[in-house]
Formats: sequence, C-alpha cells, structure tokens
Amino acid sequence: MTRRIALVIEYDGTGYAGFQRQADAPSIQEELENAIQSLTAVRATIRGAGRTDAGVHALGQVAAFDTQSILPVERIAAGLNHYLGEQIAVRAAYDVAPSFDPRRHAKSRVYRYRLLEGRAPFPLRRNVTYRVTRRLDADLMRLAAMDLVGQHDFRAFSGPQPQGRSFTRRMIRADVVRNDDELAVELEANAFLPQQVRRTAGALVDVGLGRMTVSAFRQMMESGAQGAAETVLPARGLTLQEVRYAGFPPESHATTTHDETYEPGSP
Amino acid sequence: MTRRIALVIEYDGTGYAGFQRQADAPSIQEELENAIQSLTAVRATIRGAGRTDAGVHALGQVAAFDTQSILPVERIAAGLNHYLGEQIAVRAAYDVAPSFDPRRHAKSRVYRYRLLEGRAPFPLRRNVTYRVTRRLDADLMRLAAMDLVGQHDFRAFSGPQPQGRSFTRRMIRADVVRNDDELAVELEANAFLPQQVRRTAGALVDVGLGRMTVSAFRQMMESGAQGAAETVLPARGLTLQEVRYAGFPPESHATTTHDETYEPGSP
Repeated sequence: MTRRIALVIEYDGTGYAGFQRQADAPSIQEELENAIQSLTAVRATIRGAGRTDAGVHALGQVAAFDTQSILPVERIAAGLNHYLGEQIAVRAAYDVAPSFDPRRHAKSRVYRYRLLEGRAPFPLRRNVTYRVTRRLDADLMRLAAMDLVGQHDFRAFSGPQPQGRSFTRRMIRADVVRNDDELAVELEANAFLPQQVRRTAGALVDVGLGRMTVSAFRQMMESGAQGAAETVLPARGLTLQEVRYAGFPPESHATTTHDETYEPGSP
Repeated sequence: MTRRIALVIEYDGTGYAGFQRQADAPSIQEELENAIQSLTAVRATIRGAGRTDAGVHALGQVAAFDTQSILPVERIAAGLNHYLGEQIAVRAAYDVAPSFDPRRHAKSRVYRYRLLEGRAPFPLRRNVTYRVTRRLDADLMRLAAMDLVGQHDFRAFSGPQPQGRSFTRRMIRADVVRNDDELAVELEANAFLPQQVRRTAGALVDVGLGRMTVSAFRQMMESGAQGAAETVLPARGLTLQEVRYAGFPPESHATTTHDETYEPGSP
C-alpha cells in the first residue's frame, strides 16, 4: 500500500545548486531521492514546499514522497540520515494524508537573512551570514520593513519570472531583529517571488547604511518597476527557517527528537 | 624601530592541526606567520595565549609578534586579513608594550563547549557542536559544575602532560547555559590542563544523561587519578571564546570595527 511521507529537512546549501533537481549540478532533491532509493530500493520523486536558490540554507524545508515501504516513519527518518551526507539531515518524518501537498498546502514561508557588521571577516559564520563593513541603523530598517506588510505587488523586489505570473504576495511579517551581534531580516509571506528575500534584504541594507531613505524605499516598492531593488545579497546569508501549514506537523505520528527506539547501522 | 603587535583572532579550526605550528600539518600559527611575511616581507614568530588542539575553534585567541613595519595598526589587521584564508581572521589589532606576553599575562581563558540534543544531525552547526541523542538534564549538570569552581587539583580531568607539572588550576566560572536550543558548558579558569575542557564537558554530559551521579562526579574529581574523566568529547564542539587580561585590549589604539579608513587590495 502506498503511503505519503512528509519530511522536515535541514541543509547547509553551500556547494549545492539549490533544492530542485538539476541536470548537471548537485541538488538537495537529488541527494534526498538517492537516499530514499538506498533505503527503500525504489526510486521516488520528492516534492518540496519550494525551491531554494543555489547556496541557500534551510532549517525547515518540507518535502513529501510516496513509498510502499512498511518501515515505521521514525525508521525512515533515521534510515535516510544514515545515507545522507553531512550537509543534509531529515529532522523529522511524518505519515501524512495521500493528498498532502507541501507546496500548495503551505500557508506561509519564513525566511531569515543574517547580517553581521564588521571590518574583519567572521570565519565561524562565513557560510551563513553576509557581512557589511559599516554599522546598520536597525531602527530605520525596521521602519522601512513595516511598509512591506500586507498584500502588495512586490515586483520591485522580484527577479525574473515567467510572463503572466502575478507579483502579488501577502507579507505576514517583516522585521529586523538583533540576535546577539547579528542583525536578521525576518520575512514571512504566503509565498515569495524569485530572489524576493535577497533583494528585500539588499534594499533594507541600503536603508540601514543611509544609502536610501525610508521614503525612497517606499517609492521604489510602489514604482511598479520589476527588479527596481537591484541589490541581490549573496545566497549564503539566507535560510528558509520554516514552512507553515494548518494541521502539519500532525499532533500525533511525530518522530520525537529524543526517542531512541532505533539507531541505523552507524555506531 | 621594533613594535609589538597583539592580535585578536577568530578561526574555524576544522581541518587544522591546532594553533601551534607543526612540522607536517597545517596550523593556525603557520597561516598567521605566512600572512605576516606576505604583508611585511619579514618572517616573524607569533606567540599565542595558548595552544588549541586540532579542530578546536576560537572567537578570541590572542597572539603577538614583533615587527619593524611602520604600517598603522588598523592597516596591519586589514592587510593580514587580505592574505589569510577564509577560516582565519584578525578581528582586531593593537600596538602593545614590548613586554606584553599573551600567554604569561593572561588572567584567564574562557572556553565554551556547545551541545545539541537530537536524534537527527544538525547540518548547519555540524562543525561547531557535539550532538547527543538523548535529553540532557541541565540542572544536574549545573549542580555538578558548581564543584569545579575554586582552586583545585584537576588531574582527574587532565590528559597526559609532562611529568612534574602542577595539576592545580583556579576555576573562576563553571556553568551550563541554554542558548536557544543549545546547551553550552562554559568554563573560565586562570589556565587549563590538556584536554581539560573536553574531558570536563564529557563528564558533565555523563551526568546530564544520568550515567553518572553528581556525587560520583565529585568523587571522580577528588580521586587523584589522572584522566579519571575518560570521555574526551570531540574537538569540533569546543571554542576558545576569550582570553582575559588586565589592561588589554588597551582603551585607545583600538582597531574599531566600523572604521573604514582603509581597505586592502580586495574590492
């Protein structure tokens, strides 16, 4: 009998061409599908909640696949981790309804762009942050970010996308938060346009550095010019924190983090 | 005229044989000395506040060297960073008295050992944490750690060291702290014995997992048996956070983090 399994996945996107399978470059999807094949001996196609660009990380990407395996779901998580390399891990696995669609059923996506201020590099966080050499005015950035909240045409913050598609998205939260010595741009929206987070963070950095006023930020947003926010910050600072659903993760069936019922072949 | 320059250094110790120069393996010291030679055209020997083992990281290692260079100290920091690889950075540089000795003048060292709880790996923090698969009782760990504070013979937590050396050290702070979803063992002492932090963290993890009682921890500490704390946790979870001095960093002469008077040859 076929079951649908949903995975919550963490990955270090460094060196990957992104989540989605590519013909000629390593992808997160390919690694996951290879691990599923190793574990179940059957090829499966996984469907992710969304693409992430080359080099972008995830703490909580969600993806689903169908399998006839009768392994308990917690063994599927452990088994996939046994076959996955160190840059990707299944943080949790769940049995879900056969109709569960990680992309279409997602209520929102939460992204974080991590910024550091300093003249010198930060080696221990080099792969997960972007450094600016001057101090950022977080209050101004927060003020500008407030204008993003709500249902808007975000084409000013969009990279290229196929013709005829809507640029309207609903921004649920847009904030700039200090985490110790880091400044994080945190955005939650029903969905995001191509490069939207990296262009938004880039424009907010311009505001924080005094290169752009808050009213110029608003005018750019309202300009109706696709890609008007020209600064696309590097992928390495961006992490897909969470994909939110109604009713997922399910209350039951959880692979609890501290349950030791099974260890795969590794010591 | 010869000046002494002190550096505050951050490094990702992954893949390095430790701070101290080795004949046949890459070290942080060697990379720094190569960068100094590239910048000043003169070979110099740097002296660190202390060795760190292979794979151990630092946020605030301190090292000093002598040079006849007349470059302003902020240009020395920027210039060294220009030549250093991405795993090492000079966070700040200072002109110091010719008598300044980073090792002998240090009042204390602060180390942090970062722990994560979870059945599945955490790819984004794999190089800077150690994961345990069960939940740790932080309160018990904190209770055990309290016994470490004060002047004690710490031979139970020591790896091998040359005969005749003292095992007595003064522990200034020993705590177990939650940082979001991490548990950190934080130790500050005047100085540390070989492997002391990794063995102490290992014994505290044994306490946190219920493998060792708090009184057994105390008995082991008082046993007088060198290396009685047998669990040496992996180097990757350990970071030298800070080296503390009286009068260093100096109030003036600081390379301020946000001063942009100089950018090296890089864009």
